[in-house]
Amino acid sequence: MLTQKLAEFVVQRNDVPVDVVHGATNALIDTVGVALVGTREPVAEIAWQWVEEVGARPKATVWGSSVRTSAGEAAFANGIAGHVLDWDDTSPSLRGHPSTTLIPAVMALGEAIHAPGDAMLAAYALGFEVAGKVAKALGNGHYTRGWHNTVTVGVFSCAAAAGRLLKLDVSTMRQALGLAASQSAGLLRNFGTMTKAFHAGQAARAGIHAAWLASRGFTADAAIFDGKNSFFSTYAGEDGEPFAELVSKLGQPWEVVKPGINFKKWPCCYQIHRGIIGLMDLLEENKIATGEIESIAIGFPPGSDAALIYDDPKNGLEGKFSAQYNAAAFVLDRKLGLESYTQAAIERPAVRSLMSKIRRYRVPDTKSYAGTVGYTDIELVTNRGAFKRRVQQAETRAAWVVTDEEHNEKFLECATPILGHEQARQVLKLARRCPGLDDVSVLAQATTCAPDRVATARTADKAKTTA
Amino acid sequence: MLTQKLAEFVVQRNDVPVDVVHGATNALIDTVGVALVGTREPVAEIAWQWVEEVGARPKATVWGSSVRTSAGEAAFANGIAGHVLDWDDTSPSLRGHPSTTLIPAVMALGEAIHAPGDAMLAAYALGFEVAGKVAKALGNGHYTRGWHNTVTVGVFSCAAAAGRLLKLDVSTMRQALGLAASQSAGLLRNFGTMTKAFHAGQAARAGIHAAWLASRGFTADAAIFDGKNSFFSTYAGEDGEPFAELVSKLGQPWEVVKPGINFKKWPCCYQIHRGIIGLMDLLEENKIATGEIESIAIGFPPGSDAALIYDDPKNGLEGKFSAQYNAAAFVLDRKLGLESYTQAAIERPAVRSLMSKIRRYRVPDTKSYAGTVGYTDIELVTNRGAFKRRVQQAETRAAWVVTDEEHNEKFLECATPILGHEQARQVLKLARRCPGLDDVSVLAQATTCAPDRVATARTADKAKTTA
Repeated sequence: MLTQKLAEFVVQRNDVPVDVVHGATNALIDTVGVALVGTREPVAEIAWQWVEEVGARPKATVWGSSVRTSAGEAAFANGIAGHVLDWDDTSPSLRGHPSTTLIPAVMALGEAIHAPGDAMLAAYALGFEVAGKVAKALGNGHYTRGWHNTVTVGVFSCAAAAGRLLKLDVSTMRQALGLAASQSAGLLRNFGTMTKAFHAGQAARAGIHAAWLASRGFTADAAIFDGKNSFFSTYAGEDGEPFAELVSKLGQPWEVVKPGINFKKWPCCYQIHRGIIGLMDLLEENKIATGEIESIAIGFPPGSDAALIYDDPKNGLEGKFSAQYNAAAFVLDRKLGLESYTQAAIERPAVRSLMSKIRRYRVPDTKSYAGTVGYTDIELVTNRGAFKRRVQQAETRAAWVVTDEEHNEKFLECATPILGHEQARQVLKLARRCPGLDDVSVLAQATTCAPDRVATARTADKAKTTA
Repeated sequence: MLTQKLAEFVVQRNDVPVDVVHGATNALIDTVGVALVGTREPVAEIAWQWVEEVGARPKATVWGSSVRTSAGEAAFANGIAGHVLDWDDTSPSLRGHPSTTLIPAVMALGEAIHAPGDAMLAAYALGFEVAGKVAKALGNGHYTRGWHNTVTVGVFSCAAAAGRLLKLDVSTMRQALGLAASQSAGLLRNFGTMTKAFHAGQAARAGIHAAWLASRGFTADAAIFDGKNSFFSTYAGEDGEPFAELVSKLGQPWEVVKPGINFKKWPCCYQIHRGIIGLMDLLEENKIATGEIESIAIGFPPGSDAALIYDDPKNGLEGKFSAQYNAAAFVLDRKLGLESYTQAAIERPAVRSLMSKIRRYRVPDTKSYAGTVGYTDIELVTNRGAFKRRVQQAETRAAWVVTDEEHNEKFLECATPILGHEQARQVLKLARRCPGLDDVSVLAQATTCAPDRVATARTADKAKTTA
């Protein structure tokens, strides 16, 4: 009865430690920030048109807009905006993106039902716990069979979090999980297209849908993680961990704390982050000038570069999933930012020239990796010798956004172009205070943005892109 | 470029033969009928509450209600009502239910955009064609891996049909199919719960969602049925037919005509229909009285009884998926109808006594079957000898609802308790005339039912159920 145990944990666990709440708060700040700047992207505009088409009763805010809609549709639009730049956080257990599904789900539902901040953050942390355990049971094989964990696992974490906010009892939570299982879909083949961002919005909406229907008496298989023909028998790879063991370790430690949330320093695929860290260190330590570089080799063990599908990217969205482009752009600019993924930046002759000196290769390894798990080898050959580095997951944590101050800076960098300086600071202040808020709707509604300002931000962005 | 060829067929094919239109019209009548009587079920009531919760702009009708909502939410609610009684049609190619996803999708979208009747029926037939070909490529192995084709394939057929109604071009249709692939989910494990009906509504809504987003420029993998890591590589079984061959045979013949639509005579799982036909014939031909029966044996080859998961059903919904219950109830009553699946009917001592004389066994066969494909062996032992019969798919067609007159009768049986005699006849008349309607919204809106009448029908039904 593993489904029962999982549901019991999500429904009954009340002592959420302070470091878990703190991690959840930073995830909230990170997610809302990258979603706000994400609203300038064409995919977010289409999602907003869909929200407009549905025309639902206004219960939840579409961040960075003047639009309010149903909780489900708001979660859908915000999840898409949160994921489109691929600047949102990841989780090594999930092998995908936990917060761009969970935060939109709990924020939209929290706003609609006027939940207090601590309840919303607890729901997030419990949903995160579900994501980690289900994904570990699926193993790398789930990912290598073609699924995008962010959504295939995200539907469960969002259903659990939404169910927690709706105060479902254990039996009803089990129905919600069964219903979520019948919405577990999303293919890696859609990476590099708008549908990758769709996956995030879809998980958030599906989770709310499942929990809400269950709360009204909708029935589903109440033991979806147990027995013959369980969810795992259809979806898992060969290398998953036993779910029974994972469930016995719920909250020991909390996934939010260990292995923790991997926040993104750069708005590109996490699978090239280790490589960039290696490059950054080698360039700095050896004071290497760009002109000195003769060649760069980037080595990935099996599976750890599965999402880096563009060797020759044609636009910014593809550039985010290119090992060669990101390495070249970083070496040239010594930084990566939103401006690195404009059409003009992608087409720079200097970048193209440097990309021709970059080689990608397979590191022999008996293990295979998926999502954000793995390591990267960097070899940098210059006219004064070769420099090598293997970058492991753990070593690199310090180079990521980690301090509260760095989170605040990233948020303001993202939110200011959309909301303006003053409103961005106000939203940040409310988000930092989230654990003490009586009603999270004050935070959600603080992200409201006048239509003309949205239009201006988009126009400015388009002008830059086509410049 | 199989995705391209499939999209070309759906977008460009204009000469829909008259027998295809006729088959589609009967499917429309069958689906709306069983959905109307399905609205009395608790699952339909919860779906309506969800529609109410969303509170969308009224563009499409929830059949048998006074509610109008968005096209997507109407399709969701109507798909659920259409499938809950398991009285809706099936397709041997799909190995599932084609019309309870497609008809709600094209009716809701058709109503919202005021499509003409012939365009709506063509969209249905083209969507049906996609369902047949994709499902044959997935093979029985897809089903036996745990998926419910009605929704996992239904998302594609509904996206194709909705895209056709929205007049997508070929390139945009390909995006819609890629987006549909990332919504392909639904587990057999949820059979015997409300989530089986949810699957139908989910496919209808997802199809509209995918086509609508694509129409606004949303991008997805444009060749989802081609190459490495295609939809098939993640979802197909070992025994699928080559998709290239299937695509070369689109419309030759049309799936709607051959193998055709299997309409249901009885409101229970199609997998027991063959067995009941066998029993019916043996009982009639040999003039066997119920008291003469000593035992009944029902034999299924592998896979052909996968959905008959309840040997000892506890309620009507479970009874629909019980070989033993359906056989016993048919023998006793010499018919099966909605009244066969009330709580009182399920608990009858005479039924329980007869069930104890019914044995189910596995027929050795080197092939395995899925969905509605297969055959059933019936052996009836009486005090004056044993009688045997093997019932194949094809043989049994004549015993199903087939003539227009029988369709009309089934519709009126289903619709009259909900709409009353006069309105039911009016809806039937409009549905029969559907190929000539200038705007299908007149048909959809003719199904409107005052709230008090809905409440009365439900109360009457509950009283019967608990009697």
